[in-house]
Amino acid sequence: MSNKIKKKNDDGFQIYGINGCYNIIQVKKINILRIDIMVNGIAEKKKWVMNLISSNKYPIHRIPKPQFLKKHEGKRTQGIVVSFKGKILKEIPSFENDNHNSCLLVMDNLEDPQNMGQIVRTAECAGIDGIIIPEHGSVQATNTVLQVSQGAFVHMPFYKCGNLHQQLRILKDQGFWAIGMENNIKAKHWCQFDFKRKIVLVVGSEGKGIRPIIMKTCDELLTIPMAGKINSLNVSSAVSAILFERHRQMLQGNTK
Amino acid sequence: MSNKIKKKNDDGFQIYGINGCYNIIQVKKINILRIDIMVNGIAEKKKWVMNLISSNKYPIHRIPKPQFLKKHEGKRTQGIVVSFKGKILKEIPSFENDNHNSCLLVMDNLEDPQNMGQIVRTAECAGIDGIIIPEHGSVQATNTVLQVSQGAFVHMPFYKCGNLHQQLRILKDQGFWAIGMENNIKAKHWCQFDFKRKIVLVVGSEGKGIRPIIMKTCDELLTIPMAGKINSLNVSSAVSAILFERHRQMLQGNTK
Repeated sequence: MSNKIKKKNDDGFQIYGINGCYNIIQVKKINILRIDIMVNGIAEKKKWVMNLISSNKYPIHRIPKPQFLKKHEGKRTQGIVVSFKGKILKEIPSFENDNHNSCLLVMDNLEDPQNMGQIVRTAECAGIDGIIIPEHGSVQATNTVLQVSQGAFVHMPFYKCGNLHQQLRILKDQGFWAIGMENNIKAKHWCQFDFKRKIVLVVGSEGKGIRPIIMKTCDELLTIPMAGKINSLNVSSAVSAILFERHRQMLQGNTK
Repeated sequence: MSNKIKKKNDDGFQIYGINGCYNIIQVKKINILRIDIMVNGIAEKKKWVMNLISSNKYPIHRIPKPQFLKKHEGKRTQGIVVSFKGKILKEIPSFENDNHNSCLLVMDNLEDPQNMGQIVRTAECAGIDGIIIPEHGSVQATNTVLQVSQGAFVHMPFYKCGNLHQQLRILKDQGFWAIGMENNIKAKHWCQFDFKRKIVLVVGSEGKGIRPIIMKTCDELLTIPMAGKINSLNVSSAVSAILFERHRQMLQGNTK
């Protein structure tokens, strides 16, 4: 085994902050390598953190403030950092026999890990079934993405994907509608679409949008008409508007 | 005049990045102090930037890369920085005789300038009429807020407010419904509310929510039920979901 791979495996990922760490620790399938807790930090005042310390279930390191701050410099830790390892990316399973209104989200060309982390968090809250991350051209599941997602990723399958165009064709064969979020003359308003079906929603980057070949594969394009003067809704805000429109239709029925 | 005030007035605000600077420059009411452009930077390749340079309308400083990067270290400038001054905060006018479905947004206790900037940007795109910023307890209109808003603030009135409780009472007397976004047992689903009226929407911080005295003043509380396992939708994503539900109702009518 090369040093590089060994190092990656040993280091794993890191999450900090009270909420993010809480979400990670709740999930049994994550392999926690160590938990750093700052002596007399904010985290230590939480009951669940005190229970964690007394439980002896995890390798916990209580570190005095100066050393803790030095070790985790530049991070908003709130006095707790969890290091863990685990396989974040999975193979996409077949959804052939899936009869409920599954919704998958695809990032095409998305570059900003902050946006991606925010989208993962929103997607989890909106009840999405998985996120497809193309191996090329999009941001990967980095520490920043996982951190910004506030632990949402532990409940949200991340599916890897080589050729997105082929993958969309496979999903369409399995009964999915491919929907592109794109400000295009052919696009419908986001709320004119009936979301009560199997959907794979494709999101592009703010600057470049979705690649033409991917757009052509989409069955439908959706846009959110702007009501103001600037024309640059942040991609994570746009995803929030669309996913909660879907959520609304699931709760209320599509009443267009 | 003390040095402190003089310094503040002289320095003004700064916005960087192509989109944000473009939005600022379009607006005539902003007093632009100077525009720094990096020689052979990304910005200089844009046609509107080239036109700007040749127009001689603004105090433009074309700065060679090393000096530019040193001056604006740590910022994602894309080769352009606009310094400007102007009164960002205004007095709230009377909405007494306003007969359209105005919507104001209030930040109560909001602490994170990133979230606030994102909310300003979303609010502008969703056609909101103004943002009320209490003088105490909430983040103010800082450089970070203005930067994250990508210039949206130039089209969005920021209203200052001393006592928020009193201000909400005044707005209610002027025909507004005060709506609190709060996960509360009394709260309705966000999509069960008829937004086609004068509304002042109150948003609290992620940790603390809305203050009890403000919550009591609200006519209605709204919540977004979570469809996933974590219970922590980011406040700016939640605001996006609510404001675009309002936008949908304005376009389609409320079809609950």
